[in-house]
Amino acid sequence: MCELLAMSANTPTDLCFSFAGLRRRGGDAGPHSDGWGVAFYEGHGVRVFHDPAASARSRIAEVVENHPIKSEVAVCHIRQANVGSVSLENTHPFVRELRGRYWTFAHNGQVPGFRARAGAHEPVGQTDSEHLFCDLLNRVRDELAPDPAPATLRQTLVAAATEYAQQGVCNLLVSNGEWLFTFCSTRMVAITRRAPFGPARLRDADVTVDFAAETTPQDVVSVIATEPLTANEDWDRYAPGEWRFWYAGEVIDRGCVSVPDLAHPDPDTAPANEN
Amino acid sequence: MCELLAMSANTPTDLCFSFAGLRRRGGDAGPHSDGWGVAFYEGHGVRVFHDPAASARSRIAEVVENHPIKSEVAVCHIRQANVGSVSLENTHPFVRELRGRYWTFAHNGQVPGFRARAGAHEPVGQTDSEHLFCDLLNRVRDELAPDPAPATLRQTLVAAATEYAQQGVCNLLVSNGEWLFTFCSTRMVAITRRAPFGPARLRDADVTVDFAAETTPQDVVSVIATEPLTANEDWDRYAPGEWRFWYAGEVIDRGCVSVPDLAHPDPDTAPANEN
Repeated sequence: MCELLAMSANTPTDLCFSFAGLRRRGGDAGPHSDGWGVAFYEGHGVRVFHDPAASARSRIAEVVENHPIKSEVAVCHIRQANVGSVSLENTHPFVRELRGRYWTFAHNGQVPGFRARAGAHEPVGQTDSEHLFCDLLNRVRDELAPDPAPATLRQTLVAAATEYAQQGVCNLLVSNGEWLFTFCSTRMVAITRRAPFGPARLRDADVTVDFAAETTPQDVVSVIATEPLTANEDWDRYAPGEWRFWYAGEVIDRGCVSVPDLAHPDPDTAPANEN
Repeated sequence: MCELLAMSANTPTDLCFSFAGLRRRGGDAGPHSDGWGVAFYEGHGVRVFHDPAASARSRIAEVVENHPIKSEVAVCHIRQANVGSVSLENTHPFVRELRGRYWTFAHNGQVPGFRARAGAHEPVGQTDSEHLFCDLLNRVRDELAPDPAPATLRQTLVAAATEYAQQGVCNLLVSNGEWLFTFCSTRMVAITRRAPFGPARLRDADVTVDFAAETTPQDVVSVIATEPLTANEDWDRYAPGEWRFWYAGEVIDRGCVSVPDLAHPDPDTAPANEN
């Protein structure tokens, strides 16, 4: 299994604490040693770090953990490879420009043999994940006029994710820097932190942070992940098929669709690893 | 003036030495304090670092300088802003996927008021540079079938760059990770290092490297920059209008077109700064 991590906040916030926990699962507390990547939005710009090395031992991951980069939306992924070689071009999150905004995409799961529809966006690497992303972008381009109504765009994204989840395991993070779309096919959790803030303790490292000392009473910061990152907080688990759109730390739209029950696939027929 | 830096090599090579010199011109030995960026290709993948902070004081630039990232093609830029705010989305090099390859683009100069033709690629930020890049990509998409003959692709790139240079100052670095296209409108220099390798001493920092100790006799490494980076080597100066295609450290095609003489523009009418 790969692991996903995303943040949506109403004020520029760093991801250091959550990233410190997640990166230890990349070759240290966990087996996801086939690369990692993170995208931090700043305005319409996006700063992306990709490394095909294990995050637990990556020098660049060390800098990302210790060098606060403040962002309102961040998307992160650590990889345990199945489809596609361990290489830079197969390292999530993928980034593409669509109609003047950078979109980012990270996928946990496997949609075997999936191929993107033809269009302006084509995969560079070999993963089914990047094919899913290109398909999604080509679909938005085909089906929607520029600057669609937010509800229309959300409908298209949910419809696409639902289709993908019918064909395999498809936990998704998608953002254009403004909103964050999260889709749970099998596993996803979230937490929203707001005043009164308290301390949080990582599950994967001996690190505690007192958010009260780092925030203002107006801050709202949500973190979405594959599994809870802290040991002393209540994370809210998505149902299979559940999707949520986040904006400025809050859920602005949500729903649930029917997806195949793939949470505990037959180990004899299901791939052991995922992208 | 911004400063450009690129590398083409026949074996994965780090850019640490050249980058150490260039980054000091970003707010230390030079005035280019409005951000910097670098793209390192690894196979079909590309690793990009962008920072709107001055490279001389950037923590991430420090890591890039001291953490060897080996690449056969790299494209780097440090910025002194004129058009467009100092922000992440205006920081070169720009990256876009075109037909399954990542293209990168860095520009030194100014093409006032330039607007990209309509097409699949649209600018995210406000610079004329990003408009030039999108125009180039849309042009390739419009005029060429997928997988064009290399000579045909080169012809299209040279024709586009010539057009841009008729409208302003346009020193360009463009790559798809395989070839590197360099176009000189006013200022560009290059050096090719091959056996027997010797020592090189930076102009902007008290750093000397002995390439003989770091290379094999088969290595060919070329560096292209706005101005020479070392004090004890002979850099080859491009003529205005000169273009060169590099592959594996060697020039595989070159030529010269007619461009307006903008090397010493009238300071009363020309912009003092460039993108």
